[in-house]
Amino acid sequence: MPLSRRVVLAARPDGIPQAEHFRVEAHEPLAPKPGEVVVRNQFLSVEPAMRGWVSAVANYAEPVGIGEVMRSFASGEVIASEHPGYRPGDKVTGMFGWQEVAVVPASAVSRKVTETDLPLSTSLGVLGLNGVTAYFGLLDVGCPKPGDTVLVSTAAGSVGSAVGQIARLMGCRTVGIAGGAAKVRQCLDDFGYDAAIDYKATNDLAAAVAEACPRGVDVYFDNTSGAVSDAVLRTLAMGARVVICGTASVASWDPWPAGPRPERHLLVKRARMQGVLAFDYAHRFPEALARLAGWVRSGELRYAEDILEGIAAAPDAIASLYRGENRGKRLIRLHG
Amino acid sequence: MPLSRRVVLAARPDGIPQAEHFRVEAHEPLAPKPGEVVVRNQFLSVEPAMRGWVSAVANYAEPVGIGEVMRSFASGEVIASEHPGYRPGDKVTGMFGWQEVAVVPASAVSRKVTETDLPLSTSLGVLGLNGVTAYFGLLDVGCPKPGDTVLVSTAAGSVGSAVGQIARLMGCRTVGIAGGAAKVRQCLDDFGYDAAIDYKATNDLAAAVAEACPRGVDVYFDNTSGAVSDAVLRTLAMGARVVICGTASVASWDPWPAGPRPERHLLVKRARMQGVLAFDYAHRFPEALARLAGWVRSGELRYAEDILEGIAAAPDAIASLYRGENRGKRLIRLHG
Repeated sequence: MPLSRRVVLAARPDGIPQAEHFRVEAHEPLAPKPGEVVVRNQFLSVEPAMRGWVSAVANYAEPVGIGEVMRSFASGEVIASEHPGYRPGDKVTGMFGWQEVAVVPASAVSRKVTETDLPLSTSLGVLGLNGVTAYFGLLDVGCPKPGDTVLVSTAAGSVGSAVGQIARLMGCRTVGIAGGAAKVRQCLDDFGYDAAIDYKATNDLAAAVAEACPRGVDVYFDNTSGAVSDAVLRTLAMGARVVICGTASVASWDPWPAGPRPERHLLVKRARMQGVLAFDYAHRFPEALARLAGWVRSGELRYAEDILEGIAAAPDAIASLYRGENRGKRLIRLHG
Repeated sequence: MPLSRRVVLAARPDGIPQAEHFRVEAHEPLAPKPGEVVVRNQFLSVEPAMRGWVSAVANYAEPVGIGEVMRSFASGEVIASEHPGYRPGDKVTGMFGWQEVAVVPASAVSRKVTETDLPLSTSLGVLGLNGVTAYFGLLDVGCPKPGDTVLVSTAAGSVGSAVGQIARLMGCRTVGIAGGAAKVRQCLDDFGYDAAIDYKATNDLAAAVAEACPRGVDVYFDNTSGAVSDAVLRTLAMGARVVICGTASVASWDPWPAGPRPERHLLVKRARMQGVLAFDYAHRFPEALARLAGWVRSGELRYAEDILEGIAAAPDAIASLYRGENRGKRLIRLHG
């Protein structure tokens, strides 16, 4: 096996993981055992959810242990296989961790990447978890109808930008909320939003939302929770659907933060709020990926990438994501 | 026309309407004009929503004006008609107001009461808005499945008691939350709940809910908002449905009250909260009433009534409802 570098969790962060919570180390990968595959990673993923993966607070899965390789989606090429389903040269995406070479059980592979006409990096973004999250959250939970007004928070992000564009493809009017003039420009120029609001540049976000959505908000796709969501509640249209996809603006849920009670809004507007997690739709990923790939090929679904070079960039990559420094799906490209 | 007494709004309350906000006065009803019917009311309804009907704060409809008859559902008998659809002797239910004799346009009639084998009073409760609210809120918004745990707040009330019993008919395990030992007994003995919690007798409602719902709460039918609902959030099961039917525990929505943010609960549990208003299902009331009446006749759907005698009891009737003094659907029986 080739020598490999990997990023391990060095200390457990209290809040957002910073560079000092990780350590880059070299290791010699073991030969694969029966049922395992060896993947040379080409792209590592960096995403907001990673804060939860290293947190001691209960979440969807056990936290990453101290000294363990940082859990991560990654995409690369099979270079050795002891599993009959995979052969050297296969492009694969899955839970391969922040490392150059991964020796993993075949169950860690999410799928073989068959859209070989598209860049492999898309398998971690618009044709990965971001894309299917946007697809199922918007279509299955948000239930947009033609003519609806769809409002998206973190509208230029990798999930939000896909939500806005898919909503537009469904015949909806789309309005984005993003932080800063550059992201607002990206919303309007790259992702086709009909309007975009810079929440950092307004003193009265509720008024800005009401102005941008004169017939009310039929679908609110929320990646933030907190003050942005509170500003939207009063502008919900009759029968509105609020999709709870992420809570990026809430730094800690311990103690549980308070906010304006939503019950009366939901009652008067006969609206609903509902959480979504893409993994619940795993059995329908092929359907979603086929449609998403079709829209990417036709140019109707655009995506932005923010690619850091080399594994040494990984330790600071989550923290800088939370500082809002990325301009698209954040990835780390490896040179193996 | 016979002389009639009526209850008018004398002053606008700030909060819960008390006896002094109303005045009983005599009046001589006018002869019906074309399109109008004259109804001798036999039962007047009293319900929590009336607080909203006299409030200056925007709600579903314009508030009752000062000096106007108090808006109310009522049931009675047609004694004169200038509309071809109604004849003297017809039993009807509708928006007839707190008065002994009502001269109203035919559009004020919700329906002719055809279940003449059942007491007319049921048309204002289990076969009225309470029943259809329970029916559509539980079945269409709550979507209960056999084996689900269904938790109901104000479980002995006229909506809650129907929700609990319909959930039981659907094969669910039912748990009620009510205030006081008498209502808890009523839940267990009369309405067939599998368990009931006296929220006034527990110091840790969240723990009591968790104990009574060991597999989590699949459907929470909420008539309260506030502290009772907050105690339920942590015990929601995966994919739970929270039906927002009423917000009785919140005295005022101005300023908007705060509470623990629900977003992360909804996300982690992929749960939803949704408001319901029975009027949205008006086109399906016949379906609901037929099924409800069938269950009443078979003895599978029981109801409790709390009947006050004579129109002079009306002015204090809302306030005493909010004091929790009723033991079933509150009605006023008139003697004409």
